[in-house]
Amino acid sequence: MATSQAQHLNGSAPKTASAPLQAKKDFLKVFDQLRGEILDDPLLAGQPDYAHGWLAKMLNYNVPGGKLNRGMAVADVLSALRGDKECTREEKLSADILGWCIELLQAFFLVADDVMDQSVTRRGQPCWFRLPEVGLIATNDSIVLEGCIYRILQRHFRSSPSYGQILELFHETTFQTSHGQMLDLTTTPPGKVDLARYTVPTYMRIVTFKTAYYSFYLPVACGLIIGGKSDDKDLDVAKEICLQMGQYFQIQDDYLDAYAPPEVLGKVGTDIQDSKCSWLIVQALQRANAGQRSIIEDNYGKDNADNIGKIKEVYRQLRLDEVFQKYESESYHSLTSLIQKQNQLPEDVFMLLLNKIYKRSK
Amino acid sequence: MATSQAQHLNGSAPKTASAPLQAKKDFLKVFDQLRGEILDDPLLAGQPDYAHGWLAKMLNYNVPGGKLNRGMAVADVLSALRGDKECTREEKLSADILGWCIELLQAFFLVADDVMDQSVTRRGQPCWFRLPEVGLIATNDSIVLEGCIYRILQRHFRSSPSYGQILELFHETTFQTSHGQMLDLTTTPPGKVDLARYTVPTYMRIVTFKTAYYSFYLPVACGLIIGGKSDDKDLDVAKEICLQMGQYFQIQDDYLDAYAPPEVLGKVGTDIQDSKCSWLIVQALQRANAGQRSIIEDNYGKDNADNIGKIKEVYRQLRLDEVFQKYESESYHSLTSLIQKQNQLPEDVFMLLLNKIYKRSK
Ligand SMILES: [Mg+2]
Ligand SMILES: [Mg+2]
Ligand SMILES: [Mg+2]
Ligand SMILES: [Mg+2]
Ligand SMILES: [Mg+2]
Ligand SMILES: [Mg+2]
Repeated sequence: MATSQAQHLNGSAPKTASAPLQAKKDFLKVFDQLRGEILDDPLLAGQPDYAHGWLAKMLNYNVPGGKLNRGMAVADVLSALRGDKECTREEKLSADILGWCIELLQAFFLVADDVMDQSVTRRGQPCWFRLPEVGLIATNDSIVLEGCIYRILQRHFRSSPSYGQILELFHETTFQTSHGQMLDLTTTPPGKVDLARYTVPTYMRIVTFKTAYYSFYLPVACGLIIGGKSDDKDLDVAKEICLQMGQYFQIQDDYLDAYAPPEVLGKVGTDIQDSKCSWLIVQALQRANAGQRSIIEDNYGKDNADNIGKIKEVYRQLRLDEVFQKYESESYHSLTSLIQKQNQLPEDVFMLLLNKIYKRSK
Repeated sequence: MATSQAQHLNGSAPKTASAPLQAKKDFLKVFDQLRGEILDDPLLAGQPDYAHGWLAKMLNYNVPGGKLNRGMAVADVLSALRGDKECTREEKLSADILGWCIELLQAFFLVADDVMDQSVTRRGQPCWFRLPEVGLIATNDSIVLEGCIYRILQRHFRSSPSYGQILELFHETTFQTSHGQMLDLTTTPPGKVDLARYTVPTYMRIVTFKTAYYSFYLPVACGLIIGGKSDDKDLDVAKEICLQMGQYFQIQDDYLDAYAPPEVLGKVGTDIQDSKCSWLIVQALQRANAGQRSIIEDNYGKDNADNIGKIKEVYRQLRLDEVFQKYESESYHSLTSLIQKQNQLPEDVFMLLLNKIYKRSK
């Protein structure tokens, strides 16, 4: 529904059920073009076949297989900005190219994150580093993925007056995300849980830096840049709203990890056994009595149905599902009022995004 | 000797034995300033103490402890470019700041490379990822190190007309280095030696991409940019010479790994047991008869004194020390004639660098 609303605003695509699918197909076509450009990059001319083949396989495995929400949001933001006025083919292409740069940025961080978290699966397939021929080479592949961003930006935006602004936006977002990761990794060092660090301010900071900047602010800022509405005031307004939306999104993610039926979520949550600094555990620690706290201390971060069950029982006793429901509706109201009270940018720039995630079940 | 020559050309520092030491101290002072700026970065305001402390420790451990040749070369190139005319305090500082960006780039790649190669020591201390509290967090730390480059460049060069050129230079060099690593890693996949891939063209390509661009071309290009002599023609000339010099440097490195006395080299070479695609093995494979080739196949890449000894015996039979001596003097002559025949840039820009590495013993 949210997507067909986007199509409506765009004013061009038909409101059929297959419109979102077509939009995804169109977006993927842009990836085919960009991948071709990367593989034919003159800087890489003469690379032996096996290295060239590695690059192609690595790009295919790690870049296009996600939900593509972040990448496709750039064009949605542009459409919302334009309202009834249709955007040109060139603008749409520019938005999609920046969208793929965001997807590359995400792939860069996810490939490295899976190595660090020793994860098993990602997007329904084994993590890239889990392939027997890959292993720690994944670390360099993540660097290569990041490098592709700046090759693409140079090729497609070098002559644009926004080139410098785009470069700095990607640099800044990368810096923020890496420091969010650093905070996450030092708050929850592998194998050493220190529940004293699982506080609300630290949680909000991790989430803001490691998720909200690149997942919400970056796509919106890219859309605003393409749409020619990206001075400091525009971006300040966008940042405040997007970071709050990103926090809400991650809190949902943490809630769904324990509460969504796996068949709906598409995966089995593992935050409890992984000792994640999750919204649920932070809320539980704030509310627990001495007995519940000691149950948490004894059972959190243990990969065993019995331990996990005891943690979930504490969540149940503390009625964290209700706490979340309350947070969710408060958050929605706070976001919508934030969106409505500003006059800097069209409300739809944000409402389209918000309605895509509000009360999501997966 | 080469260093005091640099001081002489600079025309300012006294030609005492401690001049190189003083130069290093001055350069390290600039790092203190930059580290302070990174730790006080407004984007990181509010980071909890333990994450802030991690960043400080990580920077200290990985950035300033190397030979600093690459970083200090920027100011040397600038001096050589100026000849008798002294450069201003501001120019020298700019050169040193870019020099530290190069050292950060190197730290970024080395931290990740040590993880991938599962190395043990680096610069006389355990590799960063070997510290028990670090482990795979090193992967993110390498990303953070890279991110510092763009924060520094933004702070110090944003208003310079060269800002765009500097950004693209660092992007391009990062891209080239990561593809050199990719070629290295796919030519010699961990645990699977395929000697058919150890050819001269592949060797030269690995060396050029993973070492020569960032170690030689990048510092020279940075010095030329600060010195205001960096149009396409200048950079083309610099690139041709620097890449050849970088190849020579890496070939020396490979030679010294097997032939330098460990007490002179400061470490015990491990290229043979590590199955490295080293210049020595590439030369040996080109020259080996059937018997020698089969000895190589049976013994290369095995971490055992007996196996290593057999490889070294093949090197001895093939007189690879003489092959190297001949290569070294040919390479020096080819480089000096390349340097002399161009009129684009002062010879000293290159001769200072070349004389620092020619016939080095460590
Ligand atoms: Mg993870
Ligand atoms: Mg993680
Ligand atoms: Mg999750
Ligand atoms: Mg290595
Ligand atoms: Mg390596
Ligand atoms: Mg070596």
